[in-house]
Amino acid sequence: MIILIQCRDQVGLVAAISGVLAAEQLNIVSLREHVDKQANLFFMRVVAEQEREVEGLEQQLLRVLPSDAVVKVNPQPEKKIVVLVTKEYHCLADILIRDYFQSLGAQVQAVIGHYDTLEDICRRFDIPYHKIEAPSSARVLFEQQLEDLVEQYAPDYIVLAKFMRILSPEFVAKYPMRIINIHHSFLPAFAGAHPYKQAFERGVKLIGATAHFVTDQLDEGPIVSQQIIPVNHSATTADMVKAGKEIETAVLARGLRLVLEDRVFVYGNKTVVFD
Amino acid sequence: MIILIQCRDQVGLVAAISGVLAAEQLNIVSLREHVDKQANLFFMRVVAEQEREVEGLEQQLLRVLPSDAVVKVNPQPEKKIVVLVTKEYHCLADILIRDYFQSLGAQVQAVIGHYDTLEDICRRFDIPYHKIEAPSSARVLFEQQLEDLVEQYAPDYIVLAKFMRILSPEFVAKYPMRIINIHHSFLPAFAGAHPYKQAFERGVKLIGATAHFVTDQLDEGPIVSQQIIPVNHSATTADMVKAGKEIETAVLARGLRLVLEDRVFVYGNKTVVFD
Amino acid sequence: MIILIQCRDQVGLVAAISGVLAAEQLNIVSLREHVDKQANLFFMRVVAEQEREVEGLEQQLLRVLPSDAVVKVNPQPEKKIVVLVTKEYHCLADILIRDYFQSLGAQVQAVIGHYDTLEDICRRFDIPYHKIEAPSSARVLFEQQLEDLVEQYAPDYIVLAKFMRILSPEFVAKYPMRIINIHHSFLPAFAGAHPYKQAFERGVKLIGATAHFVTDQLDEGPIVSQQIIPVNHSATTADMVKAGKEIETAVLARGLRLVLEDRVFVYGNKTVVFD
Amino acid sequence: MIILIQCRDQVGLVAAISGVLAAEQLNIVSLREHVDKQANLFFMRVVAEQEREVEGLEQQLLRVLPSDAVVKVNPQPEKKIVVLVTKEYHCLADILIRDYFQSLGAQVQAVIGHYDTLEDICRRFDIPYHKIEAPSSARVLFEQQLEDLVEQYAPDYIVLAKFMRILSPEFVAKYPMRIINIHHSFLPAFAGAHPYKQAFERGVKLIGATAHFVTDQLDEGPIVSQQIIPVNHSATTADMVKAGKEIETAVLARGLRLVLEDRVFVYGNKTVVFD
Repeated sequence: MIILIQCRDQVGLVAAISGVLAAEQLNIVSLREHVDKQANLFFMRVVAEQEREVEGLEQQLLRVLPSDAVVKVNPQPEKKIVVLVTKEYHCLADILIRDYFQSLGAQVQAVIGHYDTLEDICRRFDIPYHKIEAPSSARVLFEQQLEDLVEQYAPDYIVLAKFMRILSPEFVAKYPMRIINIHHSFLPAFAGAHPYKQAFERGVKLIGATAHFVTDQLDEGPIVSQQIIPVNHSATTADMVKAGKEIETAVLARGLRLVLEDRVFVYGNKTVVFD
Repeated sequence: MIILIQCRDQVGLVAAISGVLAAEQLNIVSLREHVDKQANLFFMRVVAEQEREVEGLEQQLLRVLPSDAVVKVNPQPEKKIVVLVTKEYHCLADILIRDYFQSLGAQVQAVIGHYDTLEDICRRFDIPYHKIEAPSSARVLFEQQLEDLVEQYAPDYIVLAKFMRILSPEFVAKYPMRIINIHHSFLPAFAGAHPYKQAFERGVKLIGATAHFVTDQLDEGPIVSQQIIPVNHSATTADMVKAGKEIETAVLARGLRLVLEDRVFVYGNKTVVFD
Repeated sequence: MIILIQCRDQVGLVAAISGVLAAEQLNIVSLREHVDKQANLFFMRVVAEQEREVEGLEQQLLRVLPSDAVVKVNPQPEKKIVVLVTKEYHCLADILIRDYFQSLGAQVQAVIGHYDTLEDICRRFDIPYHKIEAPSSARVLFEQQLEDLVEQYAPDYIVLAKFMRILSPEFVAKYPMRIINIHHSFLPAFAGAHPYKQAFERGVKLIGATAHFVTDQLDEGPIVSQQIIPVNHSATTADMVKAGKEIETAVLARGLRLVLEDRVFVYGNKTVVFD
Repeated sequence: MIILIQCRDQVGLVAAISGVLAAEQLNIVSLREHVDKQANLFFMRVVAEQEREVEGLEQQLLRVLPSDAVVKVNPQPEKKIVVLVTKEYHCLADILIRDYFQSLGAQVQAVIGHYDTLEDICRRFDIPYHKIEAPSSARVLFEQQLEDLVEQYAPDYIVLAKFMRILSPEFVAKYPMRIINIHHSFLPAFAGAHPYKQAFERGVKLIGATAHFVTDQLDEGPIVSQQIIPVNHSATTADMVKAGKEIETAVLARGLRLVLEDRVFVYGNKTVVFD
């Protein structure tokens, strides 16, 4: 049994919560708690063992918590996700494999794209692939078709697996903290076009990737997971792109695992990750 | 305020503990809890904010906990350590620097060795250096002198900073889970003499280091911290030794920080590290 | 154009080799050379640009090199591999994906196993899957069937993608330095059965993986690639197995890339990797 | 014997160079060569064994190379460095320790700063510490005093070990590719003031550090070495600063080793690092 609680901080919260759990004879196996002092916010993730049926636990907890509390008891264990892609296969293929072998912690409902490139790999895994026909330039129309497709599947999360288009703030607002993106990063960052070319010209020694929730600030939403891969001077721009794909795949896989196992809280522009 | 609790697991522990804290108006800023189901053991580390004086908290907590409970309220913030060395300087020097700049989280009371090599660096930092005069071969005498020296300083922990001698089970038993060692490790491990030579001959690609508590099983006590550093075919045995020293220094520094910040619980042959 | 040279070391080898290349107007783009002084062996990998057809380069090079020289000019760019599996999917699936998207640097000819578990995933990628029918206990018969199957495909390399059986020295001797294996490793290593259980009981903080060539010393052949993944006390044995799979997949992928790009020389029990 | 060569690329360079070496009976132990095709530049680092005295090798090599060639034979093995600091001790202390134990590969001639904070640690290692008296605001005067001090020691390299001031392009131009700096970096980068505060507010999961040569583009010169350290949500801004110091120390140590072992070529805004 997993219990997630987020609310404003005050003295006695842990006592109140664990009192309810003890009264129900729930044994706490693992408990992670964090308070952001600046934001005055309290976050808790409890894994408990339950020997008998427990009823109304969410209500019981809400009763002892501040009015702004969000409580989730046993969040849906097998989430549904929809994956958005363009032409790059690396993240999608990794997701499809994990889905097929039931180690993703979610069920891939559908893949949606703008090209035919990745249709065949989806077909091989019996996953519906939908191609949006609206032209790239017609953003409103494009996003309307996208939304219609997404809504068919009522996903818990939308995963941008190298979806190389910018979603409008309106679209993003419909799925707050439910869209997860992956993008490469560098030390230092390179603003502007062709970041890999800039990174090559600067001779960077590390290529990074960041998995994050999408907000209306492009590529700047709350970070879930980050990691880097080393490169050296013998790497061409193409080699750096390749290395970037390896690390993007690994970081998105880890980010998705954390989100799908309900280990991530989001607030303001940051996350609490109980890993 | 830091509170550490270890006891056998049962339902209601968190409620009992946090009830006591709430009654004292202590606000829990960070709470880490872990239960080892196999060992049926409960571990908790609480960081709380205290607005007024609290008295007898340890007793209050013991009253609501199982009889085997070990409770520490505000463990001594600035520990005392004694460092044992042979001739290698890398770990000792790192410790002396951190001690000098008050970022170690402990005070180095003294350094004890069997050679003169590291006396000068200690002198430069005004740290007493004691040379044991007993010959290597006379273990009982050697350890008696060592113990006499250590006892002068009543340290919280003894750090073996490349102390290349094996301590007897009798000596180790006097400081249970209070002796911390660092040693190199490889993937795979190489038994027998000259592990770096073996690692070179096998062409290993990683050199590791492990910081651990010392038990009477040489190099096999509970692990606190581990990390690796990459090497390649161009590394000579000497280069690998050098790389090993870099990673030993970093791993011991991290291991010490975790122990000295009271983030490590030890039980059986393993640790819980709330980092 | 890639040129690989291995021979006993002597003065003037680079001059002799590069003299031949210069006479043929080949421009050296990248050159890696290593001498193992103890073994008195010379290794070189050259990437050159060729503007016109060059004939008989291998013969020309052999003429100026010691009699034991092995020279490869433009080793076959797209190797053929056969993959051996048991029931674990993670390494196989990663290979199939890279094969399908033509980023493996090799063509998977077939997958061979002893169970039905992984047949379906192969079928989905149109890769032949062969099940060996001989019982596990009949090693000679088993390996005869295995060899017959492998020989149909004349692979450059045999990849053991979690092939949980020990191949006999006789079988291994038929494919010297052409069988690549992946296995998990720990710091420290755990001998005997159930290494993950031992690692859990010791509370290791890192899980490693090693990709290596198979020799008749089980799990002890020349190492191609190694890497680790961190774990902590909250990881169950099952979590550690899962983490081990992630790192095995990544390390085998990297090891295969290095071998398939002809960046690895093998001698004695070690490798030179020009990465 | 180490030989470094940089010149414009053309066919036959390796043959020409190695011909000269072979004629002198020099045995090449290790050779690294790299060509930047876009820049049409050739870089080579040779480690050779020399059995008898060799005279005029540099002249012999220059004779067979393009007119722009820069050749260094046995670059000075023990370089001289001057270290510039402000108040942070971590990088300086690491350098002083390595200097004291003769593992730096250079001799620290002096430390120069603007405060008294680090004078005592220098004194303990018998390293001259000079305090610049000119006020911060008087840049021209400040840099004149700095230059006068530096010039007393004729260092090969100037190391900015957390020197928190911006040097003028005029000053930098006097020591082209001879000033090495360390600074923290983030994924993504944060422009503007208080980057750690911004990183905290964004909840970054990695803190990086970059060692680079200083050009007149602040913090944007050719990169020598980079690495990261993980952090999590429980880290305060102060903890992140602390983690940043650990990784800065390690990255500067590695960057200095690479430069001092003559493994780094610089051109345009990038480096070739033969590590």
